[in-house]
Amino acid sequence: MNYQSLQLSFRNLRSNKVFELFVVSVILFSAVVVGAKTYDLPSPVLTTVAWLDSLITVIFLVELIIRFIGDENKRHFFRDPWNIFDTIIVVASLIPVEDSEMAFIGRLLRIFRVLRMVSIIPELRVLLNSLLKALPQLGYVMLLMFIIFYIYAAIGSTLFASINPELWGDISISLLTLFRVMTFEDWTDVMYETMTVYGLSWIYYLTFIFLTAFAFLNMVIGIVVSVIEKENAIEDASHNTEPSMSDLKNEIDSLKTMIQELHSQKSGSHKGQS
Amino acid sequence: MNYQSLQLSFRNLRSNKVFELFVVSVILFSAVVVGAKTYDLPSPVLTTVAWLDSLITVIFLVELIIRFIGDENKRHFFRDPWNIFDTIIVVASLIPVEDSEMAFIGRLLRIFRVLRMVSIIPELRVLLNSLLKALPQLGYVMLLMFIIFYIYAAIGSTLFASINPELWGDISISLLTLFRVMTFEDWTDVMYETMTVYGLSWIYYLTFIFLTAFAFLNMVIGIVVSVIEKENAIEDASHNTEPSMSDLKNEIDSLKTMIQELHSQKSGSHKGQS
Amino acid sequence: MNYQSLQLSFRNLRSNKVFELFVVSVILFSAVVVGAKTYDLPSPVLTTVAWLDSLITVIFLVELIIRFIGDENKRHFFRDPWNIFDTIIVVASLIPVEDSEMAFIGRLLRIFRVLRMVSIIPELRVLLNSLLKALPQLGYVMLLMFIIFYIYAAIGSTLFASINPELWGDISISLLTLFRVMTFEDWTDVMYETMTVYGLSWIYYLTFIFLTAFAFLNMVIGIVVSVIEKENAIEDASHNTEPSMSDLKNEIDSLKTMIQELHSQKSGSHKGQS
Amino acid sequence: MNYQSLQLSFRNLRSNKVFELFVVSVILFSAVVVGAKTYDLPSPVLTTVAWLDSLITVIFLVELIIRFIGDENKRHFFRDPWNIFDTIIVVASLIPVEDSEMAFIGRLLRIFRVLRMVSIIPELRVLLNSLLKALPQLGYVMLLMFIIFYIYAAIGSTLFASINPELWGDISISLLTLFRVMTFEDWTDVMYETMTVYGLSWIYYLTFIFLTAFAFLNMVIGIVVSVIEKENAIEDASHNTEPSMSDLKNEIDSLKTMIQELHSQKSGSHKGQS
Repeated sequence: MNYQSLQLSFRNLRSNKVFELFVVSVILFSAVVVGAKTYDLPSPVLTTVAWLDSLITVIFLVELIIRFIGDENKRHFFRDPWNIFDTIIVVASLIPVEDSEMAFIGRLLRIFRVLRMVSIIPELRVLLNSLLKALPQLGYVMLLMFIIFYIYAAIGSTLFASINPELWGDISISLLTLFRVMTFEDWTDVMYETMTVYGLSWIYYLTFIFLTAFAFLNMVIGIVVSVIEKENAIEDASHNTEPSMSDLKNEIDSLKTMIQELHSQKSGSHKGQS
Repeated sequence: MNYQSLQLSFRNLRSNKVFELFVVSVILFSAVVVGAKTYDLPSPVLTTVAWLDSLITVIFLVELIIRFIGDENKRHFFRDPWNIFDTIIVVASLIPVEDSEMAFIGRLLRIFRVLRMVSIIPELRVLLNSLLKALPQLGYVMLLMFIIFYIYAAIGSTLFASINPELWGDISISLLTLFRVMTFEDWTDVMYETMTVYGLSWIYYLTFIFLTAFAFLNMVIGIVVSVIEKENAIEDASHNTEPSMSDLKNEIDSLKTMIQELHSQKSGSHKGQS
Repeated sequence: MNYQSLQLSFRNLRSNKVFELFVVSVILFSAVVVGAKTYDLPSPVLTTVAWLDSLITVIFLVELIIRFIGDENKRHFFRDPWNIFDTIIVVASLIPVEDSEMAFIGRLLRIFRVLRMVSIIPELRVLLNSLLKALPQLGYVMLLMFIIFYIYAAIGSTLFASINPELWGDISISLLTLFRVMTFEDWTDVMYETMTVYGLSWIYYLTFIFLTAFAFLNMVIGIVVSVIEKENAIEDASHNTEPSMSDLKNEIDSLKTMIQELHSQKSGSHKGQS
Repeated sequence: MNYQSLQLSFRNLRSNKVFELFVVSVILFSAVVVGAKTYDLPSPVLTTVAWLDSLITVIFLVELIIRFIGDENKRHFFRDPWNIFDTIIVVASLIPVEDSEMAFIGRLLRIFRVLRMVSIIPELRVLLNSLLKALPQLGYVMLLMFIIFYIYAAIGSTLFASINPELWGDISISLLTLFRVMTFEDWTDVMYETMTVYGLSWIYYLTFIFLTAFAFLNMVIGIVVSVIEKENAIEDASHNTEPSMSDLKNEIDSLKTMIQELHSQKSGSHKGQS
């Protein structure tokens, strides 16, 4: 059996529904194994789990090799970020980990194997891509919000650092505290504490809440509008086969010319007759 | 009086407004009885309530029988999930409960009788059906959110289990804790606790909040857009009797052909004349 | 000066901008007086405030009389709910209150005088009317939500009454607790308490949160869609003067008939010639 | 080198991309310096920071002078609020501060230098302007919400002042407490406290939450609708070059007239022939 027929059979296997279902099952199973490891398990079960873990790694390796060989264009394979992600996850799982530091990274890698669900199920890939596409249009609003946060954090740590250094000690802690205020999580406790020293500090919190809430609202509305516009653009494009008003007007104009010609011709024939 | 006339009179009764109002009143009354039972009541009142409860069961049974007999197609009757729901509720209420375990289920059944309001009032049925129809389109976003939750829960229970086993003990408890973080309910308490050990664990919480909030936002916007699209589609369909641009263009084209014919005919007559 | 000229001059006064501004100022001033009374004030200031209060009452009475006399149709005057509201507020302010119980109602009446701002400023009246118009379309969703609340409250007070009677004692307390859970206010404290007895009670809270959040979401989307539809309907109506596609088609059809006639006439003339 | 050529070279410098990037970098650096000052720094670092601070002030001053000289119309320069803002920030930074009170204002000024980011980056200016444009349409809803807040605060401080003066002492404290209730921040603690005295005070809180939530919802929907409308208006305007239905109808009408003429002419020619 030569390489070409192998490639062909692997390509067929790759698009086989049963094979896809099998891989999804293995990923699901790996998720269950990841979950199981967070429980206190008796020693024999732990051994079984470790054995299952190796089995999953092997299956993933085989599946990756099948997909790689089945791909016609090898260079194209590593252009797809999901393939790179899959390869890193699988290859890194092969490295034996004994050091406790490394063991932790090894556990993390096994957890991220659940993300392979996204790389396998096409609908999830589409969904994630559409989410990522929505990110850039948020760019400037995010920058504006960060400027608001930064200015308020600088003011906060200047004014309130002596009142409660755990909340306002330096600018990074203040940023975290302001995020907490934005989520309304016990924000009055933070405010009442500073109001005992600065009686007017409620202005600080209320303006901050209004500014961030207003910016957030505008961000959401901006996304809604841009999404609806995109939908309308797609709809308009699908109607493109329909003639436009201008087309119809041109048609009527050509009709007019024809009648005009008929008219002049007739007048000519009249003149010829007379 | 034979069966056929009975069926006919029952069918008329079923669609009778007074009868419907009577059944709604009985359901409302059963809701009041359910509510009354949660208060500490003196013994004679309890006896009355128990008696009223039996009365309601009997009325519901009679109403169900009337509806069943009044239905032309008996097989069709049990295809409607609301009829099945009604039958289960009514039949289960008939079973005498004395065991304390069973008594509890009996109480639950009496509570679910309030849901019969939905099966009786057509507007509520329509509303619930439209809610249920919106569910499937959420499917993949829900799956994506669950994957995010699962990965964060696995990381959380790996890292933080030793810090607070009550919040991060195993993956199921971690999932519950993460849901709590998503609702912003005392999430800073959870964060400050883990930050004493892992100083950078705020990254864990902030990325989680951003990811879930962003996914949730997209879900909501997705529903809004799909609902608006559906509305537009319905509107477009209602305009369908209107001729399209293409129709008009075809009309004008046929006009042109007619004038063309007139033209050529004329030329022919000219030639004939000359 | 007879009654008719008085009525006319009062009607002019009513629509006078300066007069309107004066009344708004008095209402604003009455709001300030209401606010001032919540502070601990020295005795002479209190006397002044009481005197100002009487003055405001008198001005309001005079303004109401002017508006009443200025109205052409006296019956029509009391059909406007805002006029009825104004009259009740003003007349009730005239009743001398000495009893401590009545004094409290008197204070409330003075507070509600601030609402006269809405009855005076037309933009606020329009806004409030549009808010009230949006209410009925929420009717059935509100009913559905109340059914969900009621069933969960009945289950809650059946299961958890013995755990914490202050939160789940009877169905009305349970309804309040569930509203608290819906606002995410310390809902985990409520949940953790019941989870010590019923380990699976998190299902109760999570399903409740999902159901109410989902119903609420649908409600909001429903309003957005209906508002947008209404806007579109208004826009469509404004385009009504434009001819429709069907109109154009009819025009083209009549054109065809005309050409057809021309055609047949020509053929006739040919026949006549030959 | 005369003034005119200087002005021209400065104008070119102003629109130079490298110069803009340099200024943005300096602003970013000034933000880092502002952040650094909130940490406890050793004495030599503090000296360096103070020196950097002076350097930034000098660079800003030079940049402002370049922009001012480069501007063709000097009067126009101070009409742009961002230029005024920049000038105030830069000039105020030059005033030497030694007094502790003034030193604090000096620190604030240095913080607000971060806001220069908005005045430099055009996209942020556009974004902020669009946010500010959305504000007026919120005017009346904000007024209505303030009236609701004021009335509830007046009632609250009348009823509950004796229960907890820290939350309901006077109308301004009550307004703050009500804002807290609206953000759902420990609102049940506030409610349970007053419910021990007034058992029905939950009505006060629930109606307040419903009213404000409902008004807020309407505000958001109002903005969404107005934004979508504006978008549609822009889109409609862009389609303006397309002929309208009425235009087409006029065209067809003129066609009819032409055929009519042809018809009558023909009849005339027939008459002439016979």
